[in-house]
Amino acid sequence: MSLKYAERMDNIKASEIRELLKLTQDPKVISFAGGLPAAELFPIEEMKKISVDVLEKYGKVALQYGPTEGYEPLRKVIASRMKKLGVEASKDNILVISGSQQGLDFSGKIFINPGDVILCESPSYLGAINAFKAYEPKFIEVPTDGDGMILEDLEDILKNNDNVKFIYVIPDFQNPSGRTWTEERRKGLIKLANKYDIVIVEDNPYGELRFEGEYLPALAHYDTEGRVIFLGTFSKIFCPGLRLGWVYARSDILNKFILTKQGADLQSSTISQIQVAEFFEEYDIDGHIEKLRTVYKKRRDVMIKAMEDEFPDCVSFTRPNGGLFTWAVLPENINARELAVKALKKNVAFVPGGSFFPNGGNENTMRLNYSCMNEEKIIEGIKRLAAAINDMLLETEKA
Amino acid sequence: MSLKYAERMDNIKASEIRELLKLTQDPKVISFAGGLPAAELFPIEEMKKISVDVLEKYGKVALQYGPTEGYEPLRKVIASRMKKLGVEASKDNILVISGSQQGLDFSGKIFINPGDVILCESPSYLGAINAFKAYEPKFIEVPTDGDGMILEDLEDILKNNDNVKFIYVIPDFQNPSGRTWTEERRKGLIKLANKYDIVIVEDNPYGELRFEGEYLPALAHYDTEGRVIFLGTFSKIFCPGLRLGWVYARSDILNKFILTKQGADLQSSTISQIQVAEFFEEYDIDGHIEKLRTVYKKRRDVMIKAMEDEFPDCVSFTRPNGGLFTWAVLPENINARELAVKALKKNVAFVPGGSFFPNGGNENTMRLNYSCMNEEKIIEGIKRLAAAINDMLLETEKA
Repeated sequence: MSLKYAERMDNIKASEIRELLKLTQDPKVISFAGGLPAAELFPIEEMKKISVDVLEKYGKVALQYGPTEGYEPLRKVIASRMKKLGVEASKDNILVISGSQQGLDFSGKIFINPGDVILCESPSYLGAINAFKAYEPKFIEVPTDGDGMILEDLEDILKNNDNVKFIYVIPDFQNPSGRTWTEERRKGLIKLANKYDIVIVEDNPYGELRFEGEYLPALAHYDTEGRVIFLGTFSKIFCPGLRLGWVYARSDILNKFILTKQGADLQSSTISQIQVAEFFEEYDIDGHIEKLRTVYKKRRDVMIKAMEDEFPDCVSFTRPNGGLFTWAVLPENINARELAVKALKKNVAFVPGGSFFPNGGNENTMRLNYSCMNEEKIIEGIKRLAAAINDMLLETEKA
Repeated sequence: MSLKYAERMDNIKASEIRELLKLTQDPKVISFAGGLPAAELFPIEEMKKISVDVLEKYGKVALQYGPTEGYEPLRKVIASRMKKLGVEASKDNILVISGSQQGLDFSGKIFINPGDVILCESPSYLGAINAFKAYEPKFIEVPTDGDGMILEDLEDILKNNDNVKFIYVIPDFQNPSGRTWTEERRKGLIKLANKYDIVIVEDNPYGELRFEGEYLPALAHYDTEGRVIFLGTFSKIFCPGLRLGWVYARSDILNKFILTKQGADLQSSTISQIQVAEFFEEYDIDGHIEKLRTVYKKRRDVMIKAMEDEFPDCVSFTRPNGGLFTWAVLPENINARELAVKALKKNVAFVPGGSFFPNGGNENTMRLNYSCMNEEKIIEGIKRLAAAINDMLLETEKA
C-alpha cells in the first residue's frame, strides 16, 4: 500500500521533549527535562469536593455537549482574571481551549499560508515552533537579549519582509530562556507592530509565577488596536491534566478561533470547565499560586546555587525571576544532544537547546526545569550533570 | 488594521447545527436539531464515585501531564472493546483523542493537500465536511442508496480521479440519514479500496446503538491491508461532556496521528481518561448501553409513528435500525431552511439537510434527532413541524 500524506507532514517531527519524557519515566532518573508543575502541590482534596459538587449541582449539563465558546461562567472568571495582567476583557473576548498549545495550533491554522513569515524570539518555545510548522511558514528568529527582542533588529526584519503574518512572543519567564521583557521593550514592540500593521501572538503560561520584582502588564495591556492575541492556560497555575486554556482576542479575530475550534474538536471538556469555574469561586486560587511561587522560588534558588557550585566556569546560565526554567550555554564545541545521552547514563535528564531554534544551530545550549524535583534531587541532579559536562570537556580536550 | 488570514479560512464557516443549538436553548423549543444523547441517562452517581476514587488513587497522575498516545489502561480498554466490532486491536493501534471530531480534523491535516479529492456518502456528516474543508479539498459525493454507497458509481469515480486521498464513510446508522451499509457493500468497498489503493476513514459513533437486526462488523474487520482508519467515541455510549474518542489505525499511520496530536493539543485530559478506564473496569458499560438502546428505540418508534400520522404523504423519511437520526425528504419546491425559520416560530427545531451535501443542493431535506426529547415532546414537536410543513405547502400552492 502506498501512502500519500499531505506535504505539511514532512515538517511534523516528534517533540524531542515528549520523546525524552518517555525515557525519564524511570524513577532512578532525575529529570530537568519536562515543564511539569510540582504534582505534590495539586489541590487534590479540593478537586474531590468540587467533582462531587459539580456532578450534584450540574450533572446533566456537565456530562453533555456544551457551546464551542466555552462554559459562560468560566469565560467570565477568565475575563476578570485578565485584569491582573492589566487587560480589560469581557467574556465575549474569551474562547476556552484545550490548553494553550491548542491556541498555538489555531494561530497557525488561522494565519499561515505556506511560505508566510513568522517572527519569534531566538530561542523560542519548541511546542509553538512544531505547531506552526504544520502550516509551512518560514521562521525568522529575532535576536534577543536579556530584556526581550532587540527592537532595532526587529524593525530591520519588518522593513525587509512584507509577508510577516505574526510575531510570536513569550514576554514573561520565557520558555526556554527564563527571560522577561522589560516594559520599554513591550511598549516598543507594540509601537512597531502598529507601524508595520502586524498581529502579535502573546503566549503567557508563566506570568503569574513571579518570585520577585514588580509585575509587568501583559503586551495586550499596551495594545490599543486589538492586534494582540493572548494565550493563557490553567496548566501552570492549577492543573495541566484538565487540559484547559484560553484565547483572548478582539471579537472579529476571536470569531475565527471559535470557527476553527468547531471543526477541530467542537468544544473543550464541559465538566472540567465547570470544575475550574467552581474552584475559582469556592477556593483561594491566589493563595494556591502563592504556594507555587514559594516552592518554585526555593527550587530555583537551590538549582542556581548548585549550578554556581558545580558547573565549570565555562558554562553560563540565566537567573530567572519566575517561571519554570533556566537556560545554560556550554562552550561552543560541546554538543548538548551528545551531552544529553551521556547525562542520561548518569540518570539525569534535560532538553538540549538546539530544538528551540527553528532554523537550527546553537547546539551548545540546554534547558533546565526546576519546578518538579525536590531540593535534594535538584542538588544531586546538578552534580551528576556537572560530572557529565566535565567528562565531555575532558574528552574534547583530548580529541 | 488590516487582517490577512490564511486562505483556508475562506472555507471555514460556522456549523449550522451549533448555531441552531444556540437558538434552541429556549425551554419552549422542542429541538430535533442536535445530536445530543439523553442527559437523564448519564451515569451521574457512578461518575461521582469514580471521580473521588480516581483522585484518591491516582490524584498526582490524574492532574498532571500524560503521554500524547493516551492513558495506557484506557488504550487497552479501547483495544479490547474493538473486538465487539470484529477488530483485533492492540493498545499500540490506539490513540486517545478529544472526541472523534478531532480524528476528522487530523485526518484532513494528515492527508489533504489543497485540491486533493475526498469521497463521501451523499449526504454526509456536516462536522466532517467542515473539518476537512479547512484543508481545501474537492469533495466528490458518491451516490448512496439504503444499503450504502452504490459501488458501481464509486468505481467510476475512482477510475476517473487519480488524486483521491481517502473515502470517508459512516457505515452504521449514518449521520444524517440513519442508513446502515449491508455486509455486501462493506466487502465491496474494501475490495475497491484495495484495487485503487485508497485509504478509508471509517467514522463509527453509533455502531453500538443498534435497536434490532444483527450487528455487522466494522469496515476495519474486512480490511487486510491496514488501510482503514477507524474513529470511535465515548460521546454516544457514555458522556460527550468528557470529550474523549479514539483513532484505531495501523501503527505507521497512527504515528502520524500521534505527531499531529502533539502539535495540536499535546494530549487529551488525563483525569477524564482515567475516569473512563475506571468506569469500564468498575461498572457494566454494556448494561448502560442496553438502557440507551431501549430508550432510543422507543423514541424512534414514537417519532416514526408520529411522522406517519402527522406528515403529509409527500414527505418521505428513513426508518433507522439504530443511532440517533431520521432523515426526511420534502417536495422539491419546499426549502427546508425556510421551513426551519417557520418551524422555529412554532417552537420546534431541526437541521436543514442541505448542509450535509458538501457540493450543495438538496435543500428540500431535513435531519431529525429523536434521542434527547421525551415521547410526549416528540409527538408534540412532530405535530408542530407537520403544521409548519402544511403551511408551507399551502403557501407554495398559492404562489
